[in-house]
Amino acid sequence: MEKELFIGVDIGGTHMRTALIDGRGEILKSQRILTDISRGASAVSNRLAEECRSLIGAAAGHNGHVAAIGLGVAGKINRSHGLVVFSPNLPQMLNYPLAIELQEQTGIPVVMENDANLFGLGEQWLGAGRGISNWAGVTLGTGVGGCLIIGGRIWNGDELGFVGEIGHTIVDPHGPMCVCGLRGCLEAHSSGRALVEGVTESVAGKEITSGALYELSTCARLTPVDVFNNAVNGDETAIRLFRRMGWALGLAIANLFTLLGIRNAIIGGGVGASWDLFMPSLRESLAEHSCMLDESSMVIARGLLGDRAALLGAARLVQIAQHASAV
Amino acid sequence: MEKELFIGVDIGGTHMRTALIDGRGEILKSQRILTDISRGASAVSNRLAEECRSLIGAAAGHNGHVAAIGLGVAGKINRSHGLVVFSPNLPQMLNYPLAIELQEQTGIPVVMENDANLFGLGEQWLGAGRGISNWAGVTLGTGVGGCLIIGGRIWNGDELGFVGEIGHTIVDPHGPMCVCGLRGCLEAHSSGRALVEGVTESVAGKEITSGALYELSTCARLTPVDVFNNAVNGDETAIRLFRRMGWALGLAIANLFTLLGIRNAIIGGGVGASWDLFMPSLRESLAEHSCMLDESSMVIARGLLGDRAALLGAARLVQIAQHASAV
Repeated sequence: MEKELFIGVDIGGTHMRTALIDGRGEILKSQRILTDISRGASAVSNRLAEECRSLIGAAAGHNGHVAAIGLGVAGKINRSHGLVVFSPNLPQMLNYPLAIELQEQTGIPVVMENDANLFGLGEQWLGAGRGISNWAGVTLGTGVGGCLIIGGRIWNGDELGFVGEIGHTIVDPHGPMCVCGLRGCLEAHSSGRALVEGVTESVAGKEITSGALYELSTCARLTPVDVFNNAVNGDETAIRLFRRMGWALGLAIANLFTLLGIRNAIIGGGVGASWDLFMPSLRESLAEHSCMLDESSMVIARGLLGDRAALLGAARLVQIAQHASAV
Repeated sequence: MEKELFIGVDIGGTHMRTALIDGRGEILKSQRILTDISRGASAVSNRLAEECRSLIGAAAGHNGHVAAIGLGVAGKINRSHGLVVFSPNLPQMLNYPLAIELQEQTGIPVVMENDANLFGLGEQWLGAGRGISNWAGVTLGTGVGGCLIIGGRIWNGDELGFVGEIGHTIVDPHGPMCVCGLRGCLEAHSSGRALVEGVTESVAGKEITSGALYELSTCARLTPVDVFNNAVNGDETAIRLFRRMGWALGLAIANLFTLLGIRNAIIGGGVGASWDLFMPSLRESLAEHSCMLDESSMVIARGLLGDRAALLGAARLVQIAQHASAV
């Protein structure tokens, strides 16, 4: 009998990743291309359909067929209408019917979900969340995403198109401005973008007037990786910015634990490589900002699936949906 | 056939309230005495048993019998061991086996719960929460309590003895100290205690040097009701403190909505009488601190049951427990 296989999709601001995945979470084939959103939403949608068709073709070689596609996008989505409502990193996708088009172009059922929720689903299935009923996920990247696992399942709240957005909870009403328009969000302290903007502000405020970060900043070519490399090399400004990142994460997670009466969080995403740079101040801040739990009862774990978490989560999402509709 | 009746108990720092309640939430008899915790935990426990015995006796007059007692206490509790772990307003109750003693003294099953959770259960059953699946409860009193209703039920988190403690989420890390030991909690801005301390600080900082609040503060007899009365009479300091209360509530509730992906909150408790004084700034702050929801989609309702909410919630708690054990 032919095996039931799934396609997982993870569309980010820079890369579009697709993978053919079996029912146990084995990645049989994975692909990555540039998203190139500057060519417009329709072009991205067509490229995505091509990528999926190539995986549909590859399924036969694995003695299987693609039963469904799980589609992960950063931002606010309308699941029932298959729309990307708004994505900060893909502004051209505003109200674009991405899931519907993909379903029409491939003839295969598509389920769409926020990428941070897929991170949660992936880590719950095969990663650091296995066996933990209730936990909060935090994804560190250009922005800060989040999800909530409640009773072993992704929490969808009132189906408002967003949930678990810890990145846009306010940690300091006097803090820096966030891209979302609010002041003092976690994301304005603890994202890749916040690292870069922190350097830019230090240059503008003449706190730094020379050195590698100064040079990169004045050429407008500074990336979060540069801030990371300079922190590793002992640059004080860079080290301070990673401490600030940890401080804000500790406060936001402490608030979340206090509010939800839970004690587990899992951190993933690209900025996770700087774990050792922000974790000491995160732990300190978590203890300082929690009056309900001892430091030792709070568990902050690192995601185990790396950049595969959302892809595996997308496959898991449609596997669960298949099963639910079959029953 | 004899009707099944329930006793609801609400123990606060000042009053101990008990009521005989039927299965539809009708209050057949209610009693209120001073808690008088200064006489010690054991004395309070004995007085409570007496109050309950009197209601057990009254049940016959209503052609019923008391099937169970629901016991509400402010603070952190250990439900399975029937212990008051820690109650800020009843410090003498530290690790006191209040529920176990009451069960032994009355011979009737006792279930204990945090009083803010009982507020939630009461409003969900017969008040402002009817028909709303997901909402957050905030109780304003000497402190600020909270609860979460998830899928129509009280959310208990990881059963850590606390949950929904919005009062101890931090709204401003540079803000005033809280009794819990943290800086800038919601409770340090928006509780009855915060109103009184706000005046005391204004006197200490020589911002006010005369008038009714100044006189009361220097005699150490100032209460939240005085601050309320003076705000109604146009006192600027008092008005500013109620605005601060609303500002902090708006920020904390915005953070909660962003995190949980929900859009309903219900506010209750004794300070609720000052609704008109803090609501305009609450609404303004809610809109200012939310990037996920329009102002018009966020619903802040007032509890409908007044000071009966926790008593009715206590009756509902044991009614549900009865039903669950009968099934």
